[in-house]
Amino acid sequence: MKRYSVGSDIPMPTVSRMAAYLGCLASLEQQRVTAVSSRELAQMAGVTPEQVRQDLALFGRFGKRGSGYDVGRLREEVEGIFRVDGKRWVCCMVGAGSLGTALLSSRMNQRWGFRYAAAFDSDAHKIGTRIGHVPVYHINDAKAVIRRERVEIGVIAVPASSAQTVAGLLCDAGVQGIVNFAPVNIKVSQKTPVIPVDISQEFLKLAFCIQRARRREQEERLQIEAASGAD
Amino acid sequence: MKRYSVGSDIPMPTVSRMAAYLGCLASLEQQRVTAVSSRELAQMAGVTPEQVRQDLALFGRFGKRGSGYDVGRLREEVEGIFRVDGKRWVCCMVGAGSLGTALLSSRMNQRWGFRYAAAFDSDAHKIGTRIGHVPVYHINDAKAVIRRERVEIGVIAVPASSAQTVAGLLCDAGVQGIVNFAPVNIKVSQKTPVIPVDISQEFLKLAFCIQRARRREQEERLQIEAASGAD
Repeated sequence: MKRYSVGSDIPMPTVSRMAAYLGCLASLEQQRVTAVSSRELAQMAGVTPEQVRQDLALFGRFGKRGSGYDVGRLREEVEGIFRVDGKRWVCCMVGAGSLGTALLSSRMNQRWGFRYAAAFDSDAHKIGTRIGHVPVYHINDAKAVIRRERVEIGVIAVPASSAQTVAGLLCDAGVQGIVNFAPVNIKVSQKTPVIPVDISQEFLKLAFCIQRARRREQEERLQIEAASGAD
Repeated sequence: MKRYSVGSDIPMPTVSRMAAYLGCLASLEQQRVTAVSSRELAQMAGVTPEQVRQDLALFGRFGKRGSGYDVGRLREEVEGIFRVDGKRWVCCMVGAGSLGTALLSSRMNQRWGFRYAAAFDSDAHKIGTRIGHVPVYHINDAKAVIRRERVEIGVIAVPASSAQTVAGLLCDAGVQGIVNFAPVNIKVSQKTPVIPVDISQEFLKLAFCIQRARRREQEERLQIEAASGAD
């Protein structure tokens, strides 16, 4: 049954949508919904039913068409794409400022098996404290702690000006992937995947969409006026 | 010169890339770099030079090919796509928990003209306080405050279980767009754009990429072994 292949060249937009489906399936499960059609799942995720079927087909055969998918089983299968055999991911946070602290305090990632083993900062007041159970170490100890705790994922929540230095440090210490919240593009070896999360860009996108919606409304109003004028 | 049209149907991936270019251009400007080629900009943003030229062409003619772009002018032009005539966007935050507080304290959005006029929560201890200059009101006062302050953008940073209720409230109060940090899909009128930001999905994507990178490395190792075995 598990016919999906992590090695195959799945495009990132597909991977993003699979992550979105996983979120939808998990919330259906919480609501004790047991079956879902591709149409319902598509509506929840904001895509077309064809897109859902196409995406799932890329990873193998999930459930039956027509009778819908078994929510629990599909959630398990899709989750397996992201963490094979229920793998748990060990993370570290670099930067214990407001964003780093918020991410450390949030339990959102625990659901999918992400666990913070350490946080790093250079502020002497923070070293030795804990943020939501996670111990804060001095950034100079990062390499030793990352190796000792077998950290696989480094999360960067430092100002843009130090993000590249931190990225180099994380790679040297042996992390296998990076989530970068600093609003700057970082360069690392091609072998180390980096996921940039620039929150301000999401606000810019919204600004664009609002202006487009306003423009459309204006155009529609003009058309209606023109049409009534022609009567 | 300003030939781009907000009303035209620009696909969201293009809009996302334009936001990324804007981030790159702003950091070049901070570094006092005055000219940039499409190749350099492409490298910074992690896309191909053809993609950069194609994207910019969609919005009009920016700078000259060959001699490169004037960084300051291109930044201004691209910024104009997102906030026409230097518009400032008035925002409100719903949910003054750790993520809401981190977003309110951060200055990242101020650069692009986003300003928080109010925050809302239901925790009596928080009402009447300020988070980084932004006053916290009771959620029951949201409608009145949003109208009074002419809030255009609502930011949702509440648990998934209350996100839909909050979205309804924001739309009723007249916000024109929503950035949703709650890990759940919210439904509002088609006229109101919603940008979902599910941070845990970014971690899932990274997990996928790490597993893919490991698989590839393994495959390469097997190929090398097979080749040396054939010698």
